[in-house]
Parts: sequence; structure tokens; C-alpha cells
Amino acid sequence: MKKRPKSVLPDDRYFDPNPQHKKTAQHLYSLVADLPLVCPHGHVDPRLFADPDYSFGTPTELLLIPDHYIFRMLYSQGIPLEKLGIPRRDGGQVEQDHRRIWQIFAENFYLFRGTPTGTWLTHELHSVFGVEDKLSGESAQDIYDQIAARLASPEFRPRKLFEQFNIEVLCTTDAATDPLDHHRAIRQSGWGGRIRPTFRPDAVVNIDTPNWRQNIEALSEVSGSEVTNYRTFIRALENRRAYFKEMGATATDHAALTAYTEELSEREAEAIFRRALKGQATTEDAIRFTGHMLMENARMSIEDGLVMQFHPGSYRNHNPLIFERFGPDKGGDIPIRTEFTRNLRPLLNKYGHDPRLTLILFTLDETTYARELAPLAGHYPAVKLGPPWWFHDSLNGMKRYFDQVIETAGLYNTVGFNDDTRAFPSIPARHDLWRRASANWIAGLVVRGIVDLTDAEEMVQDAAYRLAKRAYKFHAEPDQA
Amino acid sequence: MKKRPKSVLPDDRYFDPNPQHKKTAQHLYSLVADLPLVCPHGHVDPRLFADPDYSFGTPTELLLIPDHYIFRMLYSQGIPLEKLGIPRRDGGQVEQDHRRIWQIFAENFYLFRGTPTGTWLTHELHSVFGVEDKLSGESAQDIYDQIAARLASPEFRPRKLFEQFNIEVLCTTDAATDPLDHHRAIRQSGWGGRIRPTFRPDAVVNIDTPNWRQNIEALSEVSGSEVTNYRTFIRALENRRAYFKEMGATATDHAALTAYTEELSEREAEAIFRRALKGQATTEDAIRFTGHMLMENARMSIEDGLVMQFHPGSYRNHNPLIFERFGPDKGGDIPIRTEFTRNLRPLLNKYGHDPRLTLILFTLDETTYARELAPLAGHYPAVKLGPPWWFHDSLNGMKRYFDQVIETAGLYNTVGFNDDTRAFPSIPARHDLWRRASANWIAGLVVRGIVDLTDAEEMVQDAAYRLAKRAYKFHAEPDQA
Amino acid sequence: MKKRPKSVLPDDRYFDPNPQHKKTAQHLYSLVADLPLVCPHGHVDPRLFADPDYSFGTPTELLLIPDHYIFRMLYSQGIPLEKLGIPRRDGGQVEQDHRRIWQIFAENFYLFRGTPTGTWLTHELHSVFGVEDKLSGESAQDIYDQIAARLASPEFRPRKLFEQFNIEVLCTTDAATDPLDHHRAIRQSGWGGRIRPTFRPDAVVNIDTPNWRQNIEALSEVSGSEVTNYRTFIRALENRRAYFKEMGATATDHAALTAYTEELSEREAEAIFRRALKGQATTEDAIRFTGHMLMENARMSIEDGLVMQFHPGSYRNHNPLIFERFGPDKGGDIPIRTEFTRNLRPLLNKYGHDPRLTLILFTLDETTYARELAPLAGHYPAVKLGPPWWFHDSLNGMKRYFDQVIETAGLYNTVGFNDDTRAFPSIPARHDLWRRASANWIAGLVVRGIVDLTDAEEMVQDAAYRLAKRAYKFHAEPDQA
Repeated sequence: MKKRPKSVLPDDRYFDPNPQHKKTAQHLYSLVADLPLVCPHGHVDPRLFADPDYSFGTPTELLLIPDHYIFRMLYSQGIPLEKLGIPRRDGGQVEQDHRRIWQIFAENFYLFRGTPTGTWLTHELHSVFGVEDKLSGESAQDIYDQIAARLASPEFRPRKLFEQFNIEVLCTTDAATDPLDHHRAIRQSGWGGRIRPTFRPDAVVNIDTPNWRQNIEALSEVSGSEVTNYRTFIRALENRRAYFKEMGATATDHAALTAYTEELSEREAEAIFRRALKGQATTEDAIRFTGHMLMENARMSIEDGLVMQFHPGSYRNHNPLIFERFGPDKGGDIPIRTEFTRNLRPLLNKYGHDPRLTLILFTLDETTYARELAPLAGHYPAVKLGPPWWFHDSLNGMKRYFDQVIETAGLYNTVGFNDDTRAFPSIPARHDLWRRASANWIAGLVVRGIVDLTDAEEMVQDAAYRLAKRAYKFHAEPDQA
Repeated sequence: MKKRPKSVLPDDRYFDPNPQHKKTAQHLYSLVADLPLVCPHGHVDPRLFADPDYSFGTPTELLLIPDHYIFRMLYSQGIPLEKLGIPRRDGGQVEQDHRRIWQIFAENFYLFRGTPTGTWLTHELHSVFGVEDKLSGESAQDIYDQIAARLASPEFRPRKLFEQFNIEVLCTTDAATDPLDHHRAIRQSGWGGRIRPTFRPDAVVNIDTPNWRQNIEALSEVSGSEVTNYRTFIRALENRRAYFKEMGATATDHAALTAYTEELSEREAEAIFRRALKGQATTEDAIRFTGHMLMENARMSIEDGLVMQFHPGSYRNHNPLIFERFGPDKGGDIPIRTEFTRNLRPLLNKYGHDPRLTLILFTLDETTYARELAPLAGHYPAVKLGPPWWFHDSLNGMKRYFDQVIETAGLYNTVGFNDDTRAFPSIPARHDLWRRASANWIAGLVVRGIVDLTDAEEMVQDAAYRLAKRAYKFHAEPDQA
Repeated sequence: MKKRPKSVLPDDRYFDPNPQHKKTAQHLYSLVADLPLVCPHGHVDPRLFADPDYSFGTPTELLLIPDHYIFRMLYSQGIPLEKLGIPRRDGGQVEQDHRRIWQIFAENFYLFRGTPTGTWLTHELHSVFGVEDKLSGESAQDIYDQIAARLASPEFRPRKLFEQFNIEVLCTTDAATDPLDHHRAIRQSGWGGRIRPTFRPDAVVNIDTPNWRQNIEALSEVSGSEVTNYRTFIRALENRRAYFKEMGATATDHAALTAYTEELSEREAEAIFRRALKGQATTEDAIRFTGHMLMENARMSIEDGLVMQFHPGSYRNHNPLIFERFGPDKGGDIPIRTEFTRNLRPLLNKYGHDPRLTLILFTLDETTYARELAPLAGHYPAVKLGPPWWFHDSLNGMKRYFDQVIETAGLYNTVGFNDDTRAFPSIPARHDLWRRASANWIAGLVVRGIVDLTDAEEMVQDAAYRLAKRAYKFHAEPDQA
């Protein structure tokens, strides 16, 4: 067999090539490379940890089918999702041969040159699965075998990987109506890994959600008190928040198309809610109610101490053909321009000065970093900025974030990193990229005489570990840095 | 004569000064520096090639009078266009002494320090005209003489330069009503240079175009079938597209103020078209009809295979004083904020998943690169991204483009470079700048361990040559890279 | 006493670490480091110079209490403004112990790591007050003593510092109704420092200003002619402009929420003004009148030659709690998205081609740099671009400005630097940062072969000194560069 090209993963990757800059970056990185991973926001399925014998399935099931970052790129080049084994909603025929799917992926892996998906995957294959060959059509099947062999070993159970990855805490994202059975199972199992739920009420709070009426029924059921009007709805939400908190949650998460907030009178809220129950709510009702519920959730956060995360600006399911055939989260969500200064004013004017509230803002519109978000975070005590989100969770995205946020907001109005992923085995790769990117950026301050090395050493540890832990109130865990 | 300052054009220009980065960039550049030029989009007058003895006139006629990039800068500093010999619409008096105009230009050449116009011109004077002195008030007349002498030589006929520039194919931009006489003359002349038309129907499709009624009459005449209503209008357009294709076109081009698309019913389209014929169309009619015709042209592209280019976001003729006195394309077009996610949704939902469509998007609003365009191109099979356009066709513009587009869309959802110029002799300078900028950017991936050198070598050739050729379907030309 | 950490202020600070780049930057910086400071726009109180014995008070009074850049950051981390000694409007209790306030500030100085406020302050403490220790909780009181000792010395009177700072001219910002008593006192004192007023009519021109009616009465009084209608209002403004000009003003300054301009008929303007006098003006009236008055002020500028500055895009007093308790300019102003292309069209179409007008545009929305402002400045003779403003007056802000503006507008449609500060002793630090940032940016052009060193040497002096002097028409001052 002829020698195959090896994948590249140099030790000094992602650092600036200037020797002085690189040396400083490497030093800073060395301080954080082995710190535990704090994962306060993500979409890993808690089922992985509820069942001690959970198996990831085939390499294709693990790495490709659940990862819309990957299959959207293949789709964009004309490869139908059916050929990639993405399950159809109607149960229609899709490719079942996982080796064949893997082959297509490998042959098209050149599409990911220069993308974060490409770098994460190279890291993951190398560090988690010991793959040294570069992924290509030629090496595809051998690499498949290698991964499959590892996956068969008991060391590749999720709990084992969780420990091996040195994860200190991992938060999932869970519907308000979720009974948190997996979380309860994990707690009762006696296993020591810290898995925490996050309260995400979008599907009951946004009255234009498809099947909203059923979600309200589910809310009644799970909260044990019937939701018949706005007042009982609020009570049910408070009840669920309390339950989530009891189950270890320290945070909530909220999505909306825009950042619009507005405080409705109780009478208005009640009227809209009743129209919604009757299926008679208007588009304007939905917008106003969502804006009002953001304020209500801020109020509740002040009362129960749950950290509030807000992710506006994604136009979900832009491509209805894909949505109808395959469902949501299939790579067809496209960002829109987002406005915070005026939209968040009602909420911030009422609650922004309250130190009991932590409101973590995320954006897909990078133009808001320097113009709106950093000034807001640099003023309101409640506001903190989340790390670069989704499309911007990348080397360039991180550089733009640091460049545009820190000068106005300072590092200490940010909350470090979160990996925001469904792809559990990619977690170390994602944190490593952040740690390298932040070490490199902070080294840039040192070599230009903007901060001294002592400050830089503090900053890099804050960015890698401490800020996330503090912002998300993970008090229980001992501070290791 | 005392020694005059020389112009600078170092061999390692535009590359990063870091030695490792520069060395890699130079290596990558060496792979593409001499590749043929593929010019799929531009505004060169086909007359240059129809007449084998076409002469460029004086240096001022060649370099200054047709180039709004240059005279707009002089105008911005208070120099009236009349003094620069720009012809007035009313035939009024303008400066006729081309040496005097050249002198003004040379004395103000310092205004172009750090601009792409400055770098293109320095390259062009040096490489095409052998000028070594730096352009200034002092050197102006000698340089004028040097250029004039070259222009008098038979080697400076456009066909000769076309060959010397190693242009593989050059596309012009032509009105839907253009009979393509020059293109026919070129084809019949037996000359081997590949000059292709591009179908640009804006003036008949946008019903608010000045003189739209006359344009429709011209369309009737040139298509040989009278346009009396919407149905015959569509037929005439299809007829013209077929003729353009027959004459070698592989693409269409569309401009609009915004990216708004909407599908009208046949009845609505017919009603608006009739109102337009009677001069009774409203502003809203015009917007909706333009949006509808974008969809119609996408439909036609799927049927006839012509690649569809779309250039929204330029507020044309912002300065009516200049427009009234000198006409369009006089440096008075100013970009506006552009929105793609919502505006293109109707078109993309209907045609975006069809692999027979290639829709190449351009923007003057760089905020859309990472936020909207890269996610759209990274999802919809039909969407590809054009290179940085107009004001952004520059070193920094290219860097921002690569930095913001590639991580999400990948290189392979872009279409390489096009020079988009009226200034024929500036074509090699523009491609050279792109080739250097892309080599330098890709070298940055190598020195940071993001891609390996093998991948980088592929990428730089794709960016310089192959992607444009593939996207614009230049099958006829043999692949030389 | 154990050795304390020293603050860092290396000679090569802010320059690129690449040796060739840094060497060139240092050379360019050496040409401008000691040039006189031209300060055409700022908010220093003229009282400082009217009284030859003016004293700055305590270190806290000098450095913290008037500087919203500093206390907004402390506030954002939950420290109430009362604890920082910020005076309440209602005279309520606030901290009076300036040493205690200083201690809080010092303990939280880590918040400013990587911010321009941090770098300015480090520079200022070091260069103006001779402080070598790094500011921290431990060093706080010693540093307080050091500053206090210096402030007690006669060398720290403002006039002395003005001379020591080598300020050639400093412009203040003054309400249209200001009698300019301090400016008159300065002129009559025989002191040679050039302090000039700037005419800022916002409070009489924007009819939705709180207390607008009183402002109009003040305008009647100070102009000596009663303002009873639009016509007399215009006459009073012209009268005040003439007075400001007589007192040395060369410029006006205008703020508005948006860049909207519109020319009203005299009849409409009169009607709106009358409604405003009766307290009956609508929101729309206010927007239209502001837009109209921008055009009127452009017209007056053409007549009297005062340079017109325009600062749109700040949402003032976003946090009403802070505004009600502490007043305006307390760190609660948040930028909004800004649009220039369409909004400024009426003004530019009427006056933009007039070389007698200089309209200097500023923005808080960096997305407009490359998209709108550079194209406008690169076309209209009247338009020039002001330096990065407020949140963007920083190392990264300057880099983004140069990168996005110069390629299209050229350096010569910009106006150099202005410090825009209330904090008089920070002026040298701010100019030094600009001079280093511009030297470094221009050096980047040299090392990449984009401009030659001769051009670069001109450019750096233009950016540091000449452009500001020329744009603001400081003819009286001899050119020293």
C-alpha cells in the first residue's frame, strides 16, 4: 500500500506566525490547554448519559447524520439529503448504507477546506479516534473501519468520554415541557458527571409556534396545574422553572426572530393569550406576546436567580422544501439583521440595572458587536455578552468578536466560551479552538504593549474557564484554575 | 535632467511581511501568476475587437475619460468634470486639451495613495506601457509621451493586447435589445479571441427605467415579434436569450436597487405590464414587477442553462446635477444597505434547490457576507457568491471577503474572480491583485496550520482560474491549470 | 516595602511585531511624535483657561468623576454611581471621600485591560503625573498621593499644561446661546494659547429638546433680537454664528438621532416653528424640522464659511433611571444603525457640489464606512470624513477606519484626528495613540509595496497634523510640519 497523506494538526496551529507573537500565544495557551471544560450551553442529548451503555452507532450516525454543519455543505453542492441518510419525516426511502454515505462525505471533504467544521473534524478524528490519515475518497473506508473499531470499545461510551474529555459541567437544552427523565436518571445513577438541564420555554411562550396548543396542554400536564389563561400560564412557567432549578439548572434560554421587547398590561397579556388559545391570535399578537414574555422571564430570573440567555436573529427553516421533508435544524436557518438598542430598551430600562439579573446576549449579526452590544454590556449591570454564535464560532469569528467587543465592553462583561453543539465528541475540538484563538488574541495585546504578561495570564484563564463558570453560577464545582 | 523618483512595483507586493507567510504566498502565487485570464463579467466595449485596427486614442482618452474610478476622486476634491474633458450630454464646452487634463491628473495622483485605483494604474503604466517614473506633475508630460508612443504602435491594438494579456475568454455586458453586431463581426472575422456577450435585460425588465417605452419598442424590433402585453414580452425575452446564447453567451446579468423577489400571478403581471405600457404604473408596480422578473429569469435560466448574475444595492445617479450634465456611470452611484435573507426567499424557495440553476450573488454591503450570503450559499444548491464587487474589489475588500465568506460557505460555493471593468488595459493588473491577495490569504491558512500545502495549492488554482471557468460554464475552452 | 509591579508603556507600543513593519512604523512615527497638537473638536471646559489659577481639584475629581468612559465600566459591573461620587441632580447623598472612590477604581482597574481607556490612563498617569507603578488596589493610595502632589504644583495649572502639551489650537463645543464669556476672558487675558469656540445649535434647532422653549428665550436674549417666528429664529442663528466667528470659531457642530435631511418650504418651516412655540409640535414635526435645519445650516456655512460637523446615530440617555438621577452624558448613550445614502441626499444634492461647504461626517455605525461614507466622500466635493468617533476612537477602531475608508475615499477626503474629549489631561495620550496607529497602518502599506516611503512620510504627517489644520481652516496658525 502506498503512503497516504497525513492530516495536519500541528502543535502551534491557529497561532500567528510572527515568532514573538507565537511564543507568547503558546505560553498563554499552555496555561489553559488542560483546564477542565465548562460547557454551559449546548444541545447534547442527555440520553447519552442516562444509559451507561449508550452506543453511538456507526461513524456515519455519530459524525454526519446529526450534524447539519456538515450535511448542509454537501447539500449546497447538489447532493440530496436522502443520499446522506438524513431521515425523512414521512419515513420515505433514504440511503441506509452508512459506508456509502461516508464515502460521499470523504470524497467531498475538500469542501471544508478553511472552515471550522473542517478543523473540528480533523481534530476530532485525530484526538478522539486516533486517525492519522487525511480524509479523502481513497482513505474513506479505512478511516471508517478505524472509527467503528473505537466506537465498539467500552471506552467510547459517552460517560467514559465525558470523563476523558475532562468536562466539569455540561448543560443541555430542554423544552419547558420536558419531564427531564434522562436528567433524573443520571442523578439517580450515582454517576458523578455533572449534567444540567437548561429551561427553554420558546415552544410555549411563542404563540405562533406550530402545535402551540398541544404544547400548552403538555405544559398543563407536566406542571400538574391546568393552563386555562395567562395567569395560570405564568404560574405553570414558574412551576417549571422551579423544577428545572431543582434538577440542577442554573439558566434559561430564549430564542426569537428579533430582540423586540414590550411590557403588556396584565389585561392585554390575558387578552392575547385567550385569543391564542382560541387560535385567533394575529401576527402582531405573537410579536408582542413574545416581547412581553421576554420581560416576564427577566422578572422571573430576578426572582429565582436563573441566568437568562437570549439568542435572537435566526430565520428558522428558510427553505420550506427541506423543512417539510426533513424537519427543523437541517442547515436551512439563515441569519437576519438584528437590532438591540431600541428593541431591548423596555426590558433593560425595567430590569437592566438589577444586579440579580444576568442577561447573556448572543447575535448572528456581527455588526451589532461594536455598535450595540458592547456599549450595552459596557453600561447595564445585567448585560453580559455570549461568545460568537453558530456561523461565527470560528477562528475569524472569534477574532472579529474580540476585536470589536473588548475595547468597549472589556473582557469582564463577556462570559467566556460555550460550544453550543449537538456533536458531543466535537466538544474538546471546539474548546481547543477557542482557547487557542483567545490565547493568540491576548498575545497580540502583549506583543503590542497593550497589556503586560501578568494581566494576559489572568485574561486567558478567565476567557477559557473562569468567566463561564462565574456567569452561569456553577458554584458547586470547585474552582480549578 | 535630474533623476526622477521611480514608481514602486516590488515582486513581493501585497504579501504579508512575515517571512514564512510571504514565502508561502510567493510559492502559491507562482502557481497562478501565468495562468490564462478568465473574464466572465465586465464592461469592455466589444467594438474594440470588432475593428482589427481599433485605436485607443490619446493617453487621456484611454486612461482617464472613461474611468469613473479616477475622475470621481478628482471631482471629490473640487475639480469640475468639465476640466477633465468628460463629455457633456448637451454638447457643452469641456476641456479638449488632453495634455492639460493629463497634467491635472498627474498633479493630483497623490490622492490615490493606498487606493486600488492607484495600484492598478501603477501596475498598468509599468507593465503595459513600460513607464518607470512615478506619476507626478513633474513627470506628467514625459509619461504622456511614452504612453502615446506605445499607443501609436500596432502592438497596441486591442486584439494584440488581448493575446498578450493571455485572456482565455472575455465577456461583455449587453442590453437585451442589443443586436450584438460587434460580436457578430468578431465571430465572422476569423480572429480566434473568445469574446462573449452577456444578456442584461434591466432596461426592459425594470418598468421605471427612463425611456422604458422606447426600450420595449426596440425589443419588439430586435426580436422580430411585437411586444403588446406581458405574454409577448416574456416570449421576446426568451427569444433574445436564445439569440445571446447562440452568439456565445453563457450568462445573464441583473441589477436592482434591492434584492426583493415576489412571484406575481400571470394576471397580476399582465395588469402591471399593461399599466406600464400606458405610462400608468406606480412605484409599487415597478418594485413588484422587478421582483417578479427576477423569478421569471431564474425560471428561464433553469430552462436555457444561462448562469444568472444578480447585482443589487447600488443607488444609481445619487447626484442629479452630475447625472443631468454628464449622464450615468460618472462616479455618482452610492451603495445602500442590502437585505437578502427575506428578499430572496420567494425565488430561492421556488428555484434555489434546482441544480440546473446557478445564481451568482454580488453585494456592495459587506455586512451581508457572513450574515446572509455565506449561509445562503452554504445551503442552497443554486447559490454561488461572486467576488468582491466595485468599491470592494481591493486588497482590503478581498481580505474581508475571504475572512467572512469562506468559513461558512467554503471556497467551493464561490466563483473566483471577475474584473468587472470598462478599462481594458487594466485587466491584467486587476487579476494580478486578486491572484496575489488570494495567494496571500490562503498562505495565511497554511502558516497557521489550518490547511496543508497540498490543499492550498489546489485552492489557489481554483480561486485564480478553475472556479470562474466552471461556474460560468466555459466548457469549450480547454482547462489549462 | 516589597517591589510593586510597574505599569507598561514600551516605546514601541501599538506597533506590529513584525520587525520590518515595526521599524517602518517607528520611523514614520518619529516624524510626527513631536508635532504640535491640533484639537479641532472636543468638550474641554473653557473655564479651565479663563482663570489662570484654575485648579483641577483631587485626583478623583480630575480623572474619574467627569469621565463617563471610566465610571460606566464600573457601573456595568454593579458599582452604583453614588459610590463613585457622581453628583445627583437632586443633590442627594453620594460618596464624598475621594480616596475611597479612588480605591474602588484602582481595585477594578483590571476591567480596563485591553480597552483604550486603560491605555490612555496608563499613558496619562505615566507621562503627565510621573506614575510608574501599575494601578491596583495595593498601589492606589500611593498613586493618589503622587497625583495630588503634582496637582498642587503651579505647573499643573491648565494653561501650563496646554503649553507643555504643545497644543497649537483647541476648540471647545458651545451652545448657540452661550455668551462665550470664558472665551472672551481668555482673549482679553493676553495669554497666547489658542482656544476657539464651536457653534453647536442642537438645543435650539431640535424642537423636541427638553426645555426648548427656554432655550429659544435664551437665544432671543443673547442675540439681542426677539425670536417670535421662523424668520426671526433664522436671523438669530445667523447673528450667533457671526458672533462665534468673531470669537474665533471656524466650525459648527450638529447632532441628530438620524441623518435625515429634507428641505421644507418657508411656509412649512414657519408652521412647524409656530406649533413648537405653542408646544403643539408632533414627533414628525421635530424630525422634519431637524432635517430642514441641517440644510439651513449647510446654507449658512456656505455663506459664512464655518465648517459643518455632523454627528448622528447616538441614542442619548438610553437608561432613564441614570438620566433622571444623574443627568446626561453618564455613559448611557448607545449607538444605533445609521443610514446616510438616502438620508443625506437632499442636502448633498443641493449643497454637496459647492466647494465653499466642508461637511465633516462622523458615525457610530462602522458598517457605513466602506458602504456609504467613503463612496460619498469619494464623490461629493463638500464631504469629508471625520476620524473614528467615541466607542471607535481606539486601536482597533482606527484600524477598521483606515482599512475601510482609505481605499475608496483616499486619505485626502479625511480630516485627520480630533480627540473629542472632556478629559483635558488625556489629550496627549489620545493624539499619541492616533499617531502610532496611523504610522503603523501606513507602514503596513509600505511593507506590502502599496506606497513608497516618500509617500508614506507625507501621509503620516498629513494624518497627524496637516489634514485637520486644513479642513478646519486654521489659517492663522503657522504650518509647522
